[in-house]
Amino acid sequence: MHRILLDTPITPGQTLRIEGEEARHAVRVKRLQPGEPLELLDGAGHIAAATVAGSEKSRTGEWILLADVLTVETRPRPHPQVHVFAPAPKGDRLEDMIDALSQVGAASWSPLETIRTIREPREARLDRLQRIAREAAKQCGRAWALGIGPARRLPDLLAESPAATATIMADAAGPHYTASVLPAGIPEIRLLLGPEGDWDPRELTLARDRNIPTASFGPHIMRIAQAAATATAIILHLARSSQTAHPAPG
Amino acid sequence: MHRILLDTPITPGQTLRIEGEEARHAVRVKRLQPGEPLELLDGAGHIAAATVAGSEKSRTGEWILLADVLTVETRPRPHPQVHVFAPAPKGDRLEDMIDALSQVGAASWSPLETIRTIREPREARLDRLQRIAREAAKQCGRAWALGIGPARRLPDLLAESPAATATIMADAAGPHYTASVLPAGIPEIRLLLGPEGDWDPRELTLARDRNIPTASFGPHIMRIAQAAATATAIILHLARSSQTAHPAPG
Repeated sequence: MHRILLDTPITPGQTLRIEGEEARHAVRVKRLQPGEPLELLDGAGHIAAATVAGSEKSRTGEWILLADVLTVETRPRPHPQVHVFAPAPKGDRLEDMIDALSQVGAASWSPLETIRTIREPREARLDRLQRIAREAAKQCGRAWALGIGPARRLPDLLAESPAATATIMADAAGPHYTASVLPAGIPEIRLLLGPEGDWDPRELTLARDRNIPTASFGPHIMRIAQAAATATAIILHLARSSQTAHPAPG
Repeated sequence: MHRILLDTPITPGQTLRIEGEEARHAVRVKRLQPGEPLELLDGAGHIAAATVAGSEKSRTGEWILLADVLTVETRPRPHPQVHVFAPAPKGDRLEDMIDALSQVGAASWSPLETIRTIREPREARLDRLQRIAREAAKQCGRAWALGIGPARRLPDLLAESPAATATIMADAAGPHYTASVLPAGIPEIRLLLGPEGDWDPRELTLARDRNIPTASFGPHIMRIAQAAATATAIILHLARSSQTAHPAPG
């Protein structure tokens, strides 16, 4: 099934004119023919079933794909939402992290400024990260794209107590993570990860003073992208294990 | 603490002459001075505490680092051992997978030939993967490097029942993974992952006929490297949760 990511909201019954790279790829690379099925996503909770109605060229010679929207499904945001706050790794590794967090199902990533890292991606970079998050959402069939948040300082984050939100700090020296570390059924989780050089001891003291639990998520030292994806996957997996009874495999 | 990976076994009381890139990096980049502490690993279970004894140049002008070995610790293999069998992704993604599996703590990776993938890394490539696994072991402080196994065919793997080993097949359409899917305390686990185009239905039928459980490890479609690392991390995390009682975080 060919998937296309749109920038605009989708309404059933509509015939969409899809332009740009998505249209060129569908017409020239995939060579989709009228009647073939499509899945359309907007990264904001909507997934539409559609069929190819045809294709045409714009006056400037760009391909336009015409799609008939059959049905639109609105998906709720996944539960719980894991909001990741982690320092931005350097170069391509930041993009790898956005991609990995999208695949494992994090709700958002925001750059975290810590004592040992104050690297903040520039605005231009954040635009690019949003594009990567939207592309990843398409690849892995996410109805909601990973959100990219503004840079935050650790003391500011620790001073807040937003409603219905639990905070946890990943620390390789902390106790093995279990689902009981966080309140059962909590809808939003803030997962804080330190830089590769680890938290400064003052940051761990600050967390202890504010009763923020720490936990470890693996036997080895992980680089920041893998640490963030692994901790998110484990938190989501254990939260879902406690939410539902699952049939035995077989 | 500067870590150095050795190709040779380590004995306490020894003065080692370390050559090659590790020596050049320690002397010229890190500028280690006599008396500074070192950690030496051999990727085969030994971690040694050592100090820099000095440095010298070989007749051909290469740097040699001299290290006094103080103590050698032999670490047991981690328990359980997760042996990953997954198709080799293309290009750099294969190296990313070896790196990710090293970080999360898999015991080994072997290329898996499935109906939809028969790509087998060439011998020359396997040598390179072993180097990547050893480098990753150094980065993340693993006493045992990730093993790289020979290519296997799915039907051959499913036909075997090695002692003290449980097999599980990752399948996005399978039930949510729980620790009860595998026998408690089993020392070796074979984790089988399909290609990005998913298992062929005949492969799932074959697994069902042989009573091999299937399980899912995340809410979204993952590419093979992330799927393998995530499933390994979740299996290890849940196995360790059931092995030990952990203190509540403070």
